[in-house]
Amino acid sequence: MQYPETMLASVLSAPEAIELTQVPVPALEAGTVLVRVTAVGVCGSDTHFYETGAIGDIVVRGPIVLGHETAGEIVAVGPGVDPSRVGTKVAVEPQTPCRRCEFCKEGSYHLCREIRFYGAWPIDGSFAEYAVIDDDFAHEVPASMTAEQAALVEPVSVAVHACRRGGVTAGSRVLITGAGPIGVLNAQVARAFGATEIVMSDPIPHRREFAAQHGASVVLDPADADLSVYEEHFDVYIDASGNARAILAALPTIRPGGTAVLVGMGGNQLEIPIAMIQHREITLTGTFRYVNTWPTAIDLVATGAVVVDPLVTGRFGLDGVEEALLKGKSDPLAIKTMVIPSLTKRSDQVSTADAVLTA
Amino acid sequence: MQYPETMLASVLSAPEAIELTQVPVPALEAGTVLVRVTAVGVCGSDTHFYETGAIGDIVVRGPIVLGHETAGEIVAVGPGVDPSRVGTKVAVEPQTPCRRCEFCKEGSYHLCREIRFYGAWPIDGSFAEYAVIDDDFAHEVPASMTAEQAALVEPVSVAVHACRRGGVTAGSRVLITGAGPIGVLNAQVARAFGATEIVMSDPIPHRREFAAQHGASVVLDPADADLSVYEEHFDVYIDASGNARAILAALPTIRPGGTAVLVGMGGNQLEIPIAMIQHREITLTGTFRYVNTWPTAIDLVATGAVVVDPLVTGRFGLDGVEEALLKGKSDPLAIKTMVIPSLTKRSDQVSTADAVLTA
Amino acid sequence: MQYPETMLASVLSAPEAIELTQVPVPALEAGTVLVRVTAVGVCGSDTHFYETGAIGDIVVRGPIVLGHETAGEIVAVGPGVDPSRVGTKVAVEPQTPCRRCEFCKEGSYHLCREIRFYGAWPIDGSFAEYAVIDDDFAHEVPASMTAEQAALVEPVSVAVHACRRGGVTAGSRVLITGAGPIGVLNAQVARAFGATEIVMSDPIPHRREFAAQHGASVVLDPADADLSVYEEHFDVYIDASGNARAILAALPTIRPGGTAVLVGMGGNQLEIPIAMIQHREITLTGTFRYVNTWPTAIDLVATGAVVVDPLVTGRFGLDGVEEALLKGKSDPLAIKTMVIPSLTKRSDQVSTADAVLTA
Amino acid sequence: MQYPETMLASVLSAPEAIELTQVPVPALEAGTVLVRVTAVGVCGSDTHFYETGAIGDIVVRGPIVLGHETAGEIVAVGPGVDPSRVGTKVAVEPQTPCRRCEFCKEGSYHLCREIRFYGAWPIDGSFAEYAVIDDDFAHEVPASMTAEQAALVEPVSVAVHACRRGGVTAGSRVLITGAGPIGVLNAQVARAFGATEIVMSDPIPHRREFAAQHGASVVLDPADADLSVYEEHFDVYIDASGNARAILAALPTIRPGGTAVLVGMGGNQLEIPIAMIQHREITLTGTFRYVNTWPTAIDLVATGAVVVDPLVTGRFGLDGVEEALLKGKSDPLAIKTMVIPSLTKRSDQVSTADAVLTA
Repeated sequence: MQYPETMLASVLSAPEAIELTQVPVPALEAGTVLVRVTAVGVCGSDTHFYETGAIGDIVVRGPIVLGHETAGEIVAVGPGVDPSRVGTKVAVEPQTPCRRCEFCKEGSYHLCREIRFYGAWPIDGSFAEYAVIDDDFAHEVPASMTAEQAALVEPVSVAVHACRRGGVTAGSRVLITGAGPIGVLNAQVARAFGATEIVMSDPIPHRREFAAQHGASVVLDPADADLSVYEEHFDVYIDASGNARAILAALPTIRPGGTAVLVGMGGNQLEIPIAMIQHREITLTGTFRYVNTWPTAIDLVATGAVVVDPLVTGRFGLDGVEEALLKGKSDPLAIKTMVIPSLTKRSDQVSTADAVLTA
Repeated sequence: MQYPETMLASVLSAPEAIELTQVPVPALEAGTVLVRVTAVGVCGSDTHFYETGAIGDIVVRGPIVLGHETAGEIVAVGPGVDPSRVGTKVAVEPQTPCRRCEFCKEGSYHLCREIRFYGAWPIDGSFAEYAVIDDDFAHEVPASMTAEQAALVEPVSVAVHACRRGGVTAGSRVLITGAGPIGVLNAQVARAFGATEIVMSDPIPHRREFAAQHGASVVLDPADADLSVYEEHFDVYIDASGNARAILAALPTIRPGGTAVLVGMGGNQLEIPIAMIQHREITLTGTFRYVNTWPTAIDLVATGAVVVDPLVTGRFGLDGVEEALLKGKSDPLAIKTMVIPSLTKRSDQVSTADAVLTA
Repeated sequence: MQYPETMLASVLSAPEAIELTQVPVPALEAGTVLVRVTAVGVCGSDTHFYETGAIGDIVVRGPIVLGHETAGEIVAVGPGVDPSRVGTKVAVEPQTPCRRCEFCKEGSYHLCREIRFYGAWPIDGSFAEYAVIDDDFAHEVPASMTAEQAALVEPVSVAVHACRRGGVTAGSRVLITGAGPIGVLNAQVARAFGATEIVMSDPIPHRREFAAQHGASVVLDPADADLSVYEEHFDVYIDASGNARAILAALPTIRPGGTAVLVGMGGNQLEIPIAMIQHREITLTGTFRYVNTWPTAIDLVATGAVVVDPLVTGRFGLDGVEEALLKGKSDPLAIKTMVIPSLTKRSDQVSTADAVLTA
Repeated sequence: MQYPETMLASVLSAPEAIELTQVPVPALEAGTVLVRVTAVGVCGSDTHFYETGAIGDIVVRGPIVLGHETAGEIVAVGPGVDPSRVGTKVAVEPQTPCRRCEFCKEGSYHLCREIRFYGAWPIDGSFAEYAVIDDDFAHEVPASMTAEQAALVEPVSVAVHACRRGGVTAGSRVLITGAGPIGVLNAQVARAFGATEIVMSDPIPHRREFAAQHGASVVLDPADADLSVYEEHFDVYIDASGNARAILAALPTIRPGGTAVLVGMGGNQLEIPIAMIQHREITLTGTFRYVNTWPTAIDLVATGAVVVDPLVTGRFGLDGVEEALLKGKSDPLAIKTMVIPSLTKRSDQVSTADAVLTA
């Protein structure tokens, strides 16, 4: 188990200030594994942290490494971990719960009040050469899976969790508002859960086009779509836009007894048609990240039930993290941007070649 | 099977205009039974119809008999119904679904779009001597059950449906806002489902007192209660007030992963803390009447798990229906007012003695 | 609405005695539709009835028309049915429940004690030119769906019901024993529900080959397969063989907390490893036909999620019903045999051309 | 945090050989607490271990302390545990899962393949003065709860798990075979879950009498009871006898769609009426210990929904463990025997007074 003492990491020190820095490789503790990062997807929340230094209550108060859609290879294991795991390709589930509270023991560890989430203050993420994660949150992927596919297991997991909470099953009719990466993956995952009709709406034409090719049965422009033809039609409604107007237009299309799952983050408050929700016994809920989704998400990607490759529209090294974070805004055609540490252009100043430890 | 051709009924012809009238006994059709009404509870919706002539979209457009919390005895059966049912004491479930749509066949007949609800325009209810209902919606009660108990199976059913939708089970911690009849029955029914902590809030002191004696573990005055001690505490929250302020104060007390069930009807719109609902994965829903609740509600009342007798605070004949409808407003101590047809003071003009048919 | 007074039907009068006979077209009653039969699949139970005159407790006591996997077109409607349904292509769900008992109202109408099942004594099935069924059990199919596809919605429904009872969902690992039509359709339906690993076993090589091409991830010959490599592996086990040895070999491969669903009918008794079932908290259950499956099964076939065409290996007219019934035994390569009334070779004696009614 | 270096323990060294011995107090590790034992219930499995040295695959291969129905008080905490827990009265859940496998993370930690169960080889139990358990498996009980009540939370947990797996809810009709402690507690717990009809059968008259007073609606003697009056009647059947004949007589009384939960351990094999289970879509399963039951079981005992005191029919010190283990066999009226360490008659040889550590 050889790995260096220090590594390159893209460190955010203040809003809009990221620097490629040489930092210590994170320490292996009991029950953890050290992962050499091979690919990291850029998420909208990374960009939000970068631009504003905060997401809701979570405020960046010191230098931090962002990045939580992570693929890699185990290069070393901490005490108590099976050493034969070294060499395993993994998709990283970027969280560690307390494992002892009622939520953890009831199978809802994502609701654990002491959960640590990687890539959000104050826990470093993986826009870096190495990352440490609890052994059981480094999920093995098939040898045939690419690093980018393994990294995109994270947003697929978001969609798996949403489809589970919505109760999507064979024959479900599903409406999805928002055709960004999460919306498109929700469409594919809903289809993998057996949904036979998947209607998507998004105001941006090329997103609709992409969605139509990757999961949607029908795509609509909310500007001119008359959703009233779908009144009381859908078993499950998933919002992947965070847009209040989209949500309010969608609610009447839910079948009595159906479910609305709000995945996209929007405002803190929303005025909803509560009498309609009562009369139609609609279930309204949301998702908070994911729980127990990695094995399923890996299987869906590995078997081709969900196809993630076409989402990747850009690749940057660790020296291009800022550009990668802004790509989604600067390039209207960008869908999912990847950070690939091996693409990093290295200068002498940041060389790591001279410092290899033996663990 | 002997019963008269005409009967006394309290007919609402316009807002605030009810008259005791001689009308034809409703016709027995295939699959229905004729019930001699022995007790009818007064519901807030009856009063609302009486005062305003409407509830939401349902507008009274002609003479109608209100009353839908009904007990009685089967006196005749229509074609296709087992004649041995004559003489059976029943609690009436006041609705008839189409039995053929997807909702009916999936076990959600209360969501049937063609459901007929009795005592709401245009279907006559049971402030009358007789009522007709589909055979299988006239649920047999034990011979030992009183007429008032059988009538109150209806509001108990409301609570059974709410507790089912909330997933109340053994050990549940439940918050109920509103300590009127529905709130108090929800407390008792929640306890019957196994809830071990039932906190209730209501601004009216004697309601709190009554609730404390009939189901609540703790009662609170919302004016001075600091619900923040219950932050993220309750597994299930049931609103039986329809009051927006009560609902908004209650939502933060729901445990992550918990459920809010809105039973009380309030405004059409409600501004909710949607980000909190998403982060805590709270499930927000409501109830529309009830489905498949009568057998359970009858069992709960028959075994004493739910005690309804103390709720009855007034009794009137059919000649006192207007007074009965207003009792809840005129008498601050009134909880549940009953209409008992046998208490009707009869004048010569409305005698039914001369017209008996043999079916 | 024109249709004849009499029709051709293949009538079973005694074991192994079927005759093509001119019989009255079944009468339209309130709430029913008359379907001109376009295709009927032959089921193993039809063959069993034909050969032995009984299935379990159901004994043929007089002339009966078999056949219950039925497609057709509505040619007339009874009282109370929307006349615009005439001309609709339908897949027939061959049962009629009482619609009033607790099972019917709770969404389990297939468990209704008064259910009438078509094509099993004493209710005529559809090896005939016409059949009558309750309006809501004649499920509309898309105009693009072929008659054979619509007929095969019935065995697809068997599989949908099994996958629902087994809780198959995205990422499920499923074992299926028996690769006849029901096994193969279960594999495809399991995949449509999201199963990502589907292992099938069958002793017959060409069945394994067919299964490998139509749904299975892996096929095994029970003669030389060592299932112990799958110890505690599968989330769901579905038996489509009715074979005791297959079931007993499969049970140890179920993951703790997993489910075994027995679809195939075998003996009345089975000695099971009950301590293992307790220790591993395995859920053992079976299926009885289907409930609320047609809409989903139609969607799965219509969207191509389940492909039924390759199953059809033979077609006969009504004059070939006996041959069709025996085809599965006489031809080792036969999978699913269809009866297509329009292929019937008609003699003068059975002409229907001269007797057309106007309804 | 003061506690001694050594303690008294009843050590089983071979079948039927238990000796009261001075042994080291078990070591506190990170995340554990040291509990001074105040009461331990005797379970049939303890007696079986004592008599035969084995239960199924679990064979006693060296000295071991039995006892797993444990109440106590926390006297010291290991690293990482909140020191304010010292002094807390607790009910001990006698197991520790790995917390990392798929079962643990999905909320089924009782199915964890690496789970350690206390009081079964090779993990010492609590027929001793002290025991160590993971912090979160030492569940706080109200100060008002007695030690015996806290100890009996364990068998109440068995019943809570059984009622959950059976889906017992308000209005359920439940049959229980076997009226020993587990059967009687299942009756009470079923009632706490809302069951309104609870029929119990047991061949022993005084058990039936006790059951009739503590939870059962009706008690039956299997010798002369004709269960056919209950054909297809019960929603849930719970076996607490392990008796094959009782189980086979009970299965036909389950309502179609109902559930059989086998709690009692009997033989390894059972011949069941599989065709009936299929036709009626009965769910057959068993329970393995419990999971996430302590908080609920504590609440049920604390609120008086379940009354455990009358079950206690004998109390012994640690010097009387052998007698306690055999009490259930020697005394036909014994129901639940308790071991109370403070009742131990101490000789000089086993005094612990001189060896107190400060942790």
